[in-house]
Amino acid sequence: MTNVDLQRERAGATISSEDFAEWWAGGRAALHERRGLEKLFIEDADLMDPQHTSLMSHKELYEYTIAKACKFLSKLRRWHAANAHSKVDAQQSAIATLYDFRMLLAGPLGTALFQQNFPLRLHFSMFLPTLLGQSTEEQQREWFDRAWRMDGIIGTYAQTELGHGTFIRGLETRADYDAQSEEFILNTPTLTAYKWWPGGLGHSANMVIVMAQLYIKGKHHGLHPFLVRIRNAETHLPEPGVDVGEIGPKLGVNGVNNGFLGLKNVRIPRTQMLMKNAQVRPNGRFVKGPEPLLTYGTMVFVRVMIVRDVSFCLLQAATIAIRYSAVRRQSPIAPDQPEPQILDHTTQQAKLFPQIAKGIYFRIAADVVWVMYQHVVKELDAGQRRNLPELHALSCCLKAYCSSESEEGVEVLRKSCGGHGYLSSSNFQQIYGTVTAACTYEGENTVLLLQTARFLLKQYVEGLKRKVLPHSVRYLRNATRPKWGKNIELTTLTALLEFAATESIRTLYEYQRQQRKLLKSEQLVANKAGIRLTQVATLHARAFLARTALEETEQFCKQLKPVLADVLTQLAELFVLELCLSSLGHILTTYPLNARQVDQLQARYEHLLANLRVNAVAVVDGFDFNDRVLGSTLGCYDGRVYERLMAEARKSPLNQESVNSTFHTHLKPLMQGKL
Amino acid sequence: MTNVDLQRERAGATISSEDFAEWWAGGRAALHERRGLEKLFIEDADLMDPQHTSLMSHKELYEYTIAKACKFLSKLRRWHAANAHSKVDAQQSAIATLYDFRMLLAGPLGTALFQQNFPLRLHFSMFLPTLLGQSTEEQQREWFDRAWRMDGIIGTYAQTELGHGTFIRGLETRADYDAQSEEFILNTPTLTAYKWWPGGLGHSANMVIVMAQLYIKGKHHGLHPFLVRIRNAETHLPEPGVDVGEIGPKLGVNGVNNGFLGLKNVRIPRTQMLMKNAQVRPNGRFVKGPEPLLTYGTMVFVRVMIVRDVSFCLLQAATIAIRYSAVRRQSPIAPDQPEPQILDHTTQQAKLFPQIAKGIYFRIAADVVWVMYQHVVKELDAGQRRNLPELHALSCCLKAYCSSESEEGVEVLRKSCGGHGYLSSSNFQQIYGTVTAACTYEGENTVLLLQTARFLLKQYVEGLKRKVLPHSVRYLRNATRPKWGKNIELTTLTALLEFAATESIRTLYEYQRQQRKLLKSEQLVANKAGIRLTQVATLHARAFLARTALEETEQFCKQLKPVLADVLTQLAELFVLELCLSSLGHILTTYPLNARQVDQLQARYEHLLANLRVNAVAVVDGFDFNDRVLGSTLGCYDGRVYERLMAEARKSPLNQESVNSTFHTHLKPLMQGKL
Ligand SMILES: Cc1cc2nc3c(=O)[nH]c(=O)nc-3n(C[C@H](O)[C@H](O)[C@H](O)COP(=O)(O)OP(=O)(O)OC[C@H]3O[C@@H](n4cnc5c(N)ncnc54)[C@H](O)[C@@H]3O)c2cc1C
Ligand SMILES: Cc1cc2nc3c(=O)[nH]c(=O)nc-3n(C[C@H](O)[C@H](O)[C@H](O)COP(=O)(O)OP(=O)(O)OC[C@H]3O[C@@H](n4cnc5c(N)ncnc54)[C@H](O)[C@@H]3O)c2cc1C
Repeated sequence: MTNVDLQRERAGATISSEDFAEWWAGGRAALHERRGLEKLFIEDADLMDPQHTSLMSHKELYEYTIAKACKFLSKLRRWHAANAHSKVDAQQSAIATLYDFRMLLAGPLGTALFQQNFPLRLHFSMFLPTLLGQSTEEQQREWFDRAWRMDGIIGTYAQTELGHGTFIRGLETRADYDAQSEEFILNTPTLTAYKWWPGGLGHSANMVIVMAQLYIKGKHHGLHPFLVRIRNAETHLPEPGVDVGEIGPKLGVNGVNNGFLGLKNVRIPRTQMLMKNAQVRPNGRFVKGPEPLLTYGTMVFVRVMIVRDVSFCLLQAATIAIRYSAVRRQSPIAPDQPEPQILDHTTQQAKLFPQIAKGIYFRIAADVVWVMYQHVVKELDAGQRRNLPELHALSCCLKAYCSSESEEGVEVLRKSCGGHGYLSSSNFQQIYGTVTAACTYEGENTVLLLQTARFLLKQYVEGLKRKVLPHSVRYLRNATRPKWGKNIELTTLTALLEFAATESIRTLYEYQRQQRKLLKSEQLVANKAGIRLTQVATLHARAFLARTALEETEQFCKQLKPVLADVLTQLAELFVLELCLSSLGHILTTYPLNARQVDQLQARYEHLLANLRVNAVAVVDGFDFNDRVLGSTLGCYDGRVYERLMAEARKSPLNQESVNSTFHTHLKPLMQGKL
Repeated sequence: MTNVDLQRERAGATISSEDFAEWWAGGRAALHERRGLEKLFIEDADLMDPQHTSLMSHKELYEYTIAKACKFLSKLRRWHAANAHSKVDAQQSAIATLYDFRMLLAGPLGTALFQQNFPLRLHFSMFLPTLLGQSTEEQQREWFDRAWRMDGIIGTYAQTELGHGTFIRGLETRADYDAQSEEFILNTPTLTAYKWWPGGLGHSANMVIVMAQLYIKGKHHGLHPFLVRIRNAETHLPEPGVDVGEIGPKLGVNGVNNGFLGLKNVRIPRTQMLMKNAQVRPNGRFVKGPEPLLTYGTMVFVRVMIVRDVSFCLLQAATIAIRYSAVRRQSPIAPDQPEPQILDHTTQQAKLFPQIAKGIYFRIAADVVWVMYQHVVKELDAGQRRNLPELHALSCCLKAYCSSESEEGVEVLRKSCGGHGYLSSSNFQQIYGTVTAACTYEGENTVLLLQTARFLLKQYVEGLKRKVLPHSVRYLRNATRPKWGKNIELTTLTALLEFAATESIRTLYEYQRQQRKLLKSEQLVANKAGIRLTQVATLHARAFLARTALEETEQFCKQLKPVLADVLTQLAELFVLELCLSSLGHILTTYPLNARQVDQLQARYEHLLANLRVNAVAVVDGFDFNDRVLGSTLGCYDGRVYERLMAEARKSPLNQESVNSTFHTHLKPLMQGKL
């Protein structure tokens, strides 16, 4: 039986969560397809957890998840073979398939089954794509198909070292070419040169794409990818010269066996340097390839994916917290009243609803950038690289902004569930572990914001020269003081953000010019201005997100039932208002609103919260998360929160015995003064 | 050998970290005493972890920590017996001793030994103090001494239930008095009435102080504490009618065995209701006691302690991150330069230094409120309760503000260590688990801010009536527009915050008056204004913290060497500037600074960061944390970061075997298509 409060919420909503779900999934067909697939796997008894993973030791967790991952993969392949789309163009289909797999593993299905993340994820998300993108055709023929079938190959991608993550050029692993034997000799010259972090590297993978500094006759030729077998396909024993292991427990994603790797005179044939871009001829001649624009493209691709991933995490958490807040009753609003659902406390609404809005509009922004990405890839294929820098800068600040906001949002949501949110069984802990990692990998957030800022300043200067600016920064030339009306319009708010961003960039530009007179180099100026640079990049991300929310909402609302369009418009407004209120200091510095105007913003915000109240549960229902995707005692569709909390607690191994052995060995002697 | 960069930092500092340490510890004697005690325990081989606790299963962790806790306690008692202060006044000494124990267990020593928190903490932090504070003298004679010696008694305190945490009056556990047998009959009438959360309740405690609704002949007489034996002292088996167990794994503090408890017709003698405040006579007559002011006092006490605790966590994390940032080299600032210590990136300084400042000035604020608390307790003893509401309001907003800032700070610091901060061996994960819990327990933060806001509005109205206001809110009557000079003075910044707080409270007061015309009750207005209420409470906390930092720094700097006084003044300024910049939106709404003035603030902030750079390591050295207190591969005094990361990884049980068994059972069959 579903909790009565949740029933009432569902009955009282003005929108249909099924309508929402269809829109969100991209149409009815897509929704049904996804549901079918999820059902197939989620209801498979073989793939159910007998015990919550938080009860296991680190080693038990590894063994358990590997076993499950293998079962899952073999079933997924059977399903895939039976359902694969027609394979006209083999190459295209490989990419499409990889994309599908990437989405499956990080999306609802992968999450439902692997709350601690999918152990062999790197094989699909990095190893295969790199093989595909960096190999010559011959190398692809030799390796790709086998790797795809995992025929003796479980791969990962090793870039980061103990001593270097951000600054890739500083990597120390080296590959010396030996023309005599036509081999590369790989070495880890120092402790800090150990590869450190690659997923699956510790005990699962047997082949690795190793990024290493290429040396030919002692001459350095830059960083290149090398395909190295590290464990024997038959025995899984480390190959000679290979020192491999795992790096130990982490804050999250403990299903992924991150590892370290040291190489000592490990030899691989010349043909195992991936040579699509640069080549080493048998005689040791180095042939530089074209600038690897596509590598940039891949970075953009991954970052857009991350924006999707973090939006997904945020919405998981929001769904749990909103359902719980509909079930939980606490603290009468007036002394003579019964306890309300906590969803009725305004402060609670302020914790919950903005997170839904963010989750939705982050994904919508990712979709928009994804379309841009596809354009740019086509342009690159045609030799045109004009739009790459814009896209790159945009993907940097969006990855940074959305991951850090989502991370914060998940914690706000957890705490909004009071003490119960702190239990592992609520699943916030694992969601947080996943989402916060995204602030660090694939470009540490600060570093990314600095990159975007550099681009913005350059564009600002171009704008001064009256050049035409790329789409996403066009406002730098056009931004005008927004006009303040009686009602707060989405366009006004967006203009406000664009104006604040432009003015802040202008001020920063002036500041740097001033500082240049005092400091020796532009780089010193840039370092000194670091905080300001990250601020303008953040403002730019907000301005872009606001404009995107505005424009996209206008578009898709045309196709939707009016009630649903209304709710999405409310969410868009809430989203943009929240962006403005978070930038209030910067807005007021550039465009002094008076106290009454600021109050207007605040009042509008409160008004939107109150309006969204009635549809809060229907909206999160509309994300259509299976209970297993949420993995939470607090968030299930039926709202049987207290029953589940108790049932989960009763499963703890400690609760299987009335008296734990330490009573006899320690507590009792202590009480008797005999210890 | 100590890392060379750290050596250079230490040699280059302008202050002596030993001077700092003496000041911070409250004098040379105190510092040496603490060091001696820590040495005694930390170097005890019996109390060292053979394995990092993150590698253990939930059950193993329980068993391991209980065993260790018992060994530690018995050693601590021997030490205490040998070193106890003279026991002239038995009662006073009991409180002093409890206070000592509380500080030991949550402070450096307890943390060094129990990074997952001390398993029997509740016995000392809640059970004994409640016995002491709520029992009659007779009850104390019967129970206190035995409980203190743990003679057959391991206790905990059970208030929160599955269904109720914040709203205590809603607790459902009931105690019916049976005059015939002169017993109370305790019951858990519903699932939501189960006690849920108390520390140590699951498998360790055998006696509990249970908060329950008292009924006499069906008539309700409010909430009272009852002393209930739940497990047999000899066998540890649950007593008849007792359903007890643990609530399962959590985000943190997994050394504490939080539990659930259901009672079914459990009978206890009448004398086991703690009757210092209210009494039940044998015949069932209920005698109401005086208003339990001291209970309020206890809440204040606990919240002040929490401010100390979270400041401690923040400084632990800051020490780790700053030492790591001195050792870590990454990303050349100019392309032709070697990689700098990341401590040289301005953005990195902005992540690190404000956290030290916060940690220091949060604790200083706690010390100030602690002195206020002692005054108020004396006044209460003399029947004078005038200053209790102020103190209460202050402790609410400080607990909320400092815990939430510390929680955020710890995560900023973790991420400032890049990927390595994400490893359990960095210890950020456990520090975060501890610090974030403080946002929820002993008054959920939002709820506390609302309480402070209510007090502030009341004081504002009193101020309008020209009454004399309590010290900490006097500014509500006196705040004037700060005068802006050429240089930024600490007094100006403090005035800016006080002015913003006052103006915001005034606006809120007006807003509520307006709203009262539209809404039916004051409570509805208060709910609608919830967000604004939490904002003014936050501003008040900031204003108080700023004023305290200003005044205290002035005081203690008089006694310090000028160089040390300089650094502490820089930290105070940084602290207050940070408070201002975080409130910029509110400040600009109430007191429009122009862009140049805002720029002045920003420039001053950057200037302070640059100035503090040279002493950053010396300052964190001055907190004098033993390596075990930090418990981190990244934060050790010797800075051998990479060696420790690798050594810790090598200890993982997975790394003890070349090939894990799942290779044969799963990975190989998968690769052979046989799964
Ligand atoms: C869960 C997880 C999974 C991972 N998986 C993989 C994997 O599969 N394969 C792989 O190769 N790697 C992996 N990594 C590693 C990851 O790519 C790196 O951690 C990341 O690139 C950040 O680098 P870093 O750790 O060296 O941080 P650092 O660069 O050392 O950062 C530390 C601090 O220095 C600052 N800093 C650095 N450079 C600058 C600058 N130029 N300006 C200002 N500040 C700066 C940063 O902002 C940060 O505050 C993983 C990491 C995590 C956490
Ligand atoms: C690590 C840990 C240890 C603990 N140890 C103990 C222990 O030893 N003994 C014990 O008895 N308890 C213990 N607790 C329980 C703790 O005291 C409660 O979790 C705490 O009081 C919060 O109550 P709650 O969980 O019911 O949250 P709720 O009150 O349910 O809060 C949920 C949400 O509702 C909101 N809300 C509630 N009331 C209002 C209101 N009036 N206005 C606006 N919003 C409101 C909150 O802000 C929050 O967002 C522990 C908890 C934790 C996390």
